[in-house]
Amino acid sequence: MSQDIRRFSDRLHDTIRRKKSYVVVGLDPRVSHIPSQLLKEGAENYGGARGICHAMSEFNRRIIDAVCDYAIAVKPQLAYYEQYGSLGIGVYEATVRHARERGLLVIADAKRNDIGTTAEAYAAAYLGGESPLSADAVTVNPYFGSDGLRPFIDEAGRNGRGLFVLCRTSNPSAPEIQDVGDESTPLYCRIAGLCHELGRSRAGECGYSDVGLVVGATYPAEAARIRRIARGAWFLVPGYGAQGAGPQDVLNCFGEDGMGAIVNSSRSIIFAYEKAQDGEDGGERASIEFDKHAAIAARRMRDQINEAVDGRFGLPF
Amino acid sequence: MSQDIRRFSDRLHDTIRRKKSYVVVGLDPRVSHIPSQLLKEGAENYGGARGICHAMSEFNRRIIDAVCDYAIAVKPQLAYYEQYGSLGIGVYEATVRHARERGLLVIADAKRNDIGTTAEAYAAAYLGGESPLSADAVTVNPYFGSDGLRPFIDEAGRNGRGLFVLCRTSNPSAPEIQDVGDESTPLYCRIAGLCHELGRSRAGECGYSDVGLVVGATYPAEAARIRRIARGAWFLVPGYGAQGAGPQDVLNCFGEDGMGAIVNSSRSIIFAYEKAQDGEDGGERASIEFDKHAAIAARRMRDQINEAVDGRFGLPF
Repeated sequence: MSQDIRRFSDRLHDTIRRKKSYVVVGLDPRVSHIPSQLLKEGAENYGGARGICHAMSEFNRRIIDAVCDYAIAVKPQLAYYEQYGSLGIGVYEATVRHARERGLLVIADAKRNDIGTTAEAYAAAYLGGESPLSADAVTVNPYFGSDGLRPFIDEAGRNGRGLFVLCRTSNPSAPEIQDVGDESTPLYCRIAGLCHELGRSRAGECGYSDVGLVVGATYPAEAARIRRIARGAWFLVPGYGAQGAGPQDVLNCFGEDGMGAIVNSSRSIIFAYEKAQDGEDGGERASIEFDKHAAIAARRMRDQINEAVDGRFGLPF
Repeated sequence: MSQDIRRFSDRLHDTIRRKKSYVVVGLDPRVSHIPSQLLKEGAENYGGARGICHAMSEFNRRIIDAVCDYAIAVKPQLAYYEQYGSLGIGVYEATVRHARERGLLVIADAKRNDIGTTAEAYAAAYLGGESPLSADAVTVNPYFGSDGLRPFIDEAGRNGRGLFVLCRTSNPSAPEIQDVGDESTPLYCRIAGLCHELGRSRAGECGYSDVGLVVGATYPAEAARIRRIARGAWFLVPGYGAQGAGPQDVLNCFGEDGMGAIVNSSRSIIFAYEKAQDGEDGGERASIEFDKHAAIAARRMRDQINEAVDGRFGLPF
């Protein structure tokens, strides 16, 4: 890594301290939840898939503008863009550009991986210096073993980027696969150990490495176990909000220094306006001001997590 | 599933019988291996990324025309398209259209998955009736457990599509993760069992189901074990050719009826021209006729596998 490229781990650490926030906003622009006036505008001006993509892009742009003071990063979930093919990927590209202009880190939630040579291509796509899909970090699936992880780690190192390897996912059937193995080292603990080893030579000045883990907030006991194994890994923590986890549930993901974890919420921030739609106008005003509701929800989440972290560890900023 | 939509499993069975072939051609258009005259043409007419994408598209079109008599399906590997962002995805879309026009099935090698709601979005993207990325089947990663698989199975059922779940991948570090667990049921056997259960209600008239497995030709002993567990699953078998496996190595993937497996090769077919580049002209002629060399390699692979299957089971066509 050349001297002038700062490690992802250190950039993330800096951003948390500067913004006094651990919040990541998931950009999952499900069309059925996008405010109707945006869809109408898109349909009138462009029609069809192009109109829908215009609405998605505009939705993301306004959400980014609304949350950029309270969040450190956005996490676009590729699936929702891929549904619209090359047009949808164009929306993802525009979203990444806009988020960067607003000073946000971008985590591509792609959960990619493949065998070595193809993993290199995915790494180049999501962590490369020149790729149109390139983000600050990408989520990676560990099913192929270390062969599939090394190309991402190498590409990340070259370009000051990072990765988050799936360890304990937030969904109900996670244990079916992730608990396989003997009690002393179930699969998710092995993956934590493997990533800890692979990340040893990738530690930043902050003490954490560029090889992070995805650890669902819905499994706090497992999170504590993973934290003991992978002390130097950043945890990207999904499952907060709509999936049921609250501020106390994420605390096991943090290190003793009150660092080491960032927490994502998607639906409960970006579609917060839907819960405000019980006014006299049938929710029209809430729908028009969807970005205002997102800002309120992001600020509240920031404050709730900060309060919880302060209570357990003391805030590091 | 409505009565007029034929199951993927039966469509695959029909195609094998009709074409007397088990060959899948992997479309991994690595730019560094695309014949130089195509890249030059793209650069002159379009320049930059657009020129490269034009060359990729033209390369795929000519490969498809060359192999369509010998192959049953093509398998575009999404990573190589994603490297070029929305332009690259446009190449994938054009490739899928052209392959269908030539009567080939399309397997999107995307290795996608996520938690339930996002898995639905990926399933809609790759198996949906109207999505621009939609293929006949998609490869799926099992790390999330059954939550992540059901949306793909349901979408496949609605639209006569199929899926291939990663079970035993072809790379050297596959055992690190896939052998975790006690000897009697390592992870890859559990996944085979889970997919066998999930596929029970999805069996076609041919006896095989729409829920297939990816089983690397480089692990023939494991393939035999998986075949005993998941008798009704189609196996998509990578690792043939450049990765080192030959016709005898894939036989354990087949059922006793000489059906149940399809075999992929990428590099050794699409870049076969590179091995013919030792002529007096420095390989220029081989490079110009790259498609002819791909056709020869595809036909040879078809014949070699047919001969091996005939020797063990007797050909079913």
